[in-house]
Amino acid sequence: MPAERFSGVLAPVVTPFDNQLNPDPGRLVQHCRWLLSQGARLAVFGTNSEANSLSVEEKIHLLDMLVDQGIEPASMMPGTGCCALTDTVRLTRHAVELGCAGVLMLPPFYYKGVSDAGLFASYSEVVQRVGSAALQVYLYHIPPLTQVPLSLALVERLVSAYPDTIAGIKDSSGDWQNTRALLEAGWDNFRVFCGSESFLLATLRGGGAGCISATANVNPGPIDRLWRNWQAADAEAGQQALDATREFFQGFSMIAALKATLAHYRGDPEWNRVRPPLLTLPEQQLQSLLTGLQKQAFQMPDLSRFP
Amino acid sequence: MPAERFSGVLAPVVTPFDNQLNPDPGRLVQHCRWLLSQGARLAVFGTNSEANSLSVEEKIHLLDMLVDQGIEPASMMPGTGCCALTDTVRLTRHAVELGCAGVLMLPPFYYKGVSDAGLFASYSEVVQRVGSAALQVYLYHIPPLTQVPLSLALVERLVSAYPDTIAGIKDSSGDWQNTRALLEAGWDNFRVFCGSESFLLATLRGGGAGCISATANVNPGPIDRLWRNWQAADAEAGQQALDATREFFQGFSMIAALKATLAHYRGDPEWNRVRPPLLTLPEQQLQSLLTGLQKQAFQMPDLSRFP
Repeated sequence: MPAERFSGVLAPVVTPFDNQLNPDPGRLVQHCRWLLSQGARLAVFGTNSEANSLSVEEKIHLLDMLVDQGIEPASMMPGTGCCALTDTVRLTRHAVELGCAGVLMLPPFYYKGVSDAGLFASYSEVVQRVGSAALQVYLYHIPPLTQVPLSLALVERLVSAYPDTIAGIKDSSGDWQNTRALLEAGWDNFRVFCGSESFLLATLRGGGAGCISATANVNPGPIDRLWRNWQAADAEAGQQALDATREFFQGFSMIAALKATLAHYRGDPEWNRVRPPLLTLPEQQLQSLLTGLQKQAFQMPDLSRFP
Repeated sequence: MPAERFSGVLAPVVTPFDNQLNPDPGRLVQHCRWLLSQGARLAVFGTNSEANSLSVEEKIHLLDMLVDQGIEPASMMPGTGCCALTDTVRLTRHAVELGCAGVLMLPPFYYKGVSDAGLFASYSEVVQRVGSAALQVYLYHIPPLTQVPLSLALVERLVSAYPDTIAGIKDSSGDWQNTRALLEAGWDNFRVFCGSESFLLATLRGGGAGCISATANVNPGPIDRLWRNWQAADAEAGQQALDATREFFQGFSMIAALKATLAHYRGDPEWNRVRPPLLTLPEQQLQSLLTGLQKQAFQMPDLSRFP
């Protein structure tokens, strides 16, 4: 039986590394617990998780560790889309076997200018090879990084072919016209997530499901509150507050800034590592980040409950 | 001891698939033997090999099979650059342990807009983790696909830091000014390969090492002859003939066209398979390809020696 489809706020959970740049399962579990406590659910292995800087083995191992440590698979939507068909199938199958309620699936992103028919064949082959009624695929449209867009026609074709499996989409195009077109398509029980909370209110007003957003790693509570109260009178004000925080973080290299923020508020410098080709924030930017956060009286509540 | 650095013509060897879309080691060995007989060497796991549609395990298995079947590791420059640091290290280490004379290394290509410092850290980490004097890295600059260019400044920094390891570059930018700048840099024993035989004569006249080109899969002999005879009186005519063939193939989806050509001239339809997101040529294009090849009296000599 497939899980109920996702709605709400998901964090593309940043991946902590130890001093050998190996993933650090202990800190990852801790961060996941905190995110859950703030109302977010877990899009582990997203873009902001540096998922594409991790091998399939590393991702499988982390997923196993998360489940072993009591993180509910039903709360997880791991990213499983790789360049290689066989990698995507292997990782997706593993996520389904663990009971993950869905997977977030990039298209194969090395070859450019590929046709909708080729992308359909790619997703189709994965769905058929995994061959499980429990599989719930959320398509991942992020052309700024993949340069391989998922057209509306392709999404429609996938939904038509696999209505019980193609569960939704994360639209990280940053193009509201595209998100609106997905919302207006009106496919049955198809969940549209915006890729930034800047579009959260508009997405929810258009019938969307929520957002999967980088900044949910550090600001999950307020984003979740807007999701829960989007019909309240102060929703616009809530959106504006989220926008201000988002805009602030966008002034920095996002992943490095999220990790620096976690390192600072946790008092744990171990968090402040990224894998190449990414780099940590240079000292001056780090100071500018921390000063800016202090000025805004930025908070990460309840951290002490997850030491 | 590092191997002598490569020069000459290398084919980014196309990867045959069986009817389950698994790599077919038997046909790959056969094709490699034919390429070697025509004077080419073997850039297995290049872009035209659909390398990024193969898992690391599949590539390791194929490399083992090639060596088991008597393909000289000294003739091979496998592509080993993946998105994930750990994948690149694992595959590169395996290639070095097998005795491959070099590796062709893409930068990590998911994240865009990464800095030269980040890319330097990435290559540097791989070189240090592999930690072998036998490692010979040929950088792979192919911005149309990676969207992650390797700047002249980055290449210079890598050559300066690791002069015994950074052996050369494949320039698939299609931008002659860039190739010329690499040639004019004049780094000691640094091997510049153009990514298309269209630039072969110009590259050799500029002191370059050769080319690593898709069409070397089907036209290796004539390309190799120009490489050997570039100072001969008829070199311009040789270049023009290569250009005509290259231009013809560029009228089609390259990988599908190469495989269709092999399938036809070998009388072996099994060759005519690609992994999604690529697709085989539609029937009409296939006919147009074969008619065009016939018109040019295109030949693939000695195929019968490698049945």
